[in-house]
Amino acid sequence: MVRVVVLRWGHRAPRDRRVTTHVALTARAFGAEGMILADVRDESVEKSVGKVVRLWGGSFKLEAGVPWRKAVEEWRGKGGLVVHLTAYGEPLTRQLAGKIRRLNKPVMVLVGSQKVPREFFAETVSDFNVSVGSQPHSEVSSLAIFLDRILGEEWLKKEFERARLKIIPQERGKKVLRLEA
Amino acid sequence: MVRVVVLRWGHRAPRDRRVTTHVALTARAFGAEGMILADVRDESVEKSVGKVVRLWGGSFKLEAGVPWRKAVEEWRGKGGLVVHLTAYGEPLTRQLAGKIRRLNKPVMVLVGSQKVPREFFAETVSDFNVSVGSQPHSEVSSLAIFLDRILGEEWLKKEFERARLKIIPQERGKKVLRLEA
Repeated sequence: MVRVVVLRWGHRAPRDRRVTTHVALTARAFGAEGMILADVRDESVEKSVGKVVRLWGGSFKLEAGVPWRKAVEEWRGKGGLVVHLTAYGEPLTRQLAGKIRRLNKPVMVLVGSQKVPREFFAETVSDFNVSVGSQPHSEVSSLAIFLDRILGEEWLKKEFERARLKIIPQERGKKVLRLEA
Repeated sequence: MVRVVVLRWGHRAPRDRRVTTHVALTARAFGAEGMILADVRDESVEKSVGKVVRLWGGSFKLEAGVPWRKAVEEWRGKGGLVVHLTAYGEPLTRQLAGKIRRLNKPVMVLVGSQKVPREFFAETVSDFNVSVGSQPHSEVSSLAIFLDRILGEEWLKKEFERARLKIIPQERGKKVLRLEA
C-alpha cells in the first residue's frame, strides 16, 4: 500500500476549524499516515484530532505550523510525489489513479481551503493536478474519493492498533467495545 | 441511475454552516437531485448553495425547514428507501452497494451531524444503517463514498444544464468557460 500524507493549506481559524478537522479525520480513517497543517497552528484542531487518535487508535500524526514550501521541498527531495487536489485539474479516472499507484512512491496530497497560490499548479510544486469532479463541492469529499482510489478500499478493513474504542458493525443500533488501554 | 435525495439532520447555526454547505455541494456534485435541511432554515447555507446552482447549473433543489419525520414518512409512503449513514452500521461493501442499487428504488440518505435520535436506527425510519468505515471521520466523506458506490461513477461525467461557468480540466493551471445565461 502506498504511503500517503496530507498537506492542508490555507486554514483560517476559527472559520475552517470543523472542515480542517474533517479533513484530518478523513485522512486518518481512509489510511493516510498523517497530516501537516501548513503555516499555522490551531490548538482546537490539534486537540480534536489528538483525542480521536487516543480513543480510536492507530498512529496518525498531525504536525502543525510547518511552512508549506518547506514541507513540499522536503517531500520532493526524498523522492515523494505531490498531488494537488483541485476542481481545475485532470479528472481522477481509474486510469489516472492506476498511473499514480503504479509509480509506487509516497504521495503528499495538497488540499487547499481558500484560493491557493498559483504556484501549486506548477511543476515545481505538484506532479499532478487532480480533480474529483469539475464542480465546486468539498475538499473533504475530494480527499475521501482520492484516498479510496489510491489505497484501493483496503482502508475499509483497516485495523487501528491500541484502540480504546472499537465499533462492532450492526444492522440496527450501536455496539462499541471499550478496551483496556 | 437511481434517484437520490439527502436529508441533513441536526444542523446547528452557525457552527455547522460550512459542513452543511459541503454536504449539500457534495450531494449536488455527486448526482443527488436535492437536499432537505431538516427542521431548521439557515439563510447562509441556502444562499451559498443557491449561488452555486445559479452559476454552475443543474436542477439541484435545497428545501429547508421540513420536519425530519414528515420528510421520512412521505418518502417511505411513496415507496422510497431510506439509508441512514452512521459509523455504527453495516460496512458499505461492494455487495451491500449492489444490493441497494438492485432494489432500484429512490433513495433518501439520512446524514446526521450531532448525535442522532435512537429512532434513526429503527425499521420504522431506516431500511439500512450503513457505515463508511467504522471510524469517526466526516459525514461529507461518508456521503461522497456512498453516492460514488450507488451512482457508479456516472457522477464524474455528469453535465449540469444551464451552467454559466464550466471548468475545462487541465493538467496545469485553470481554465473556466463563461457561458451566456
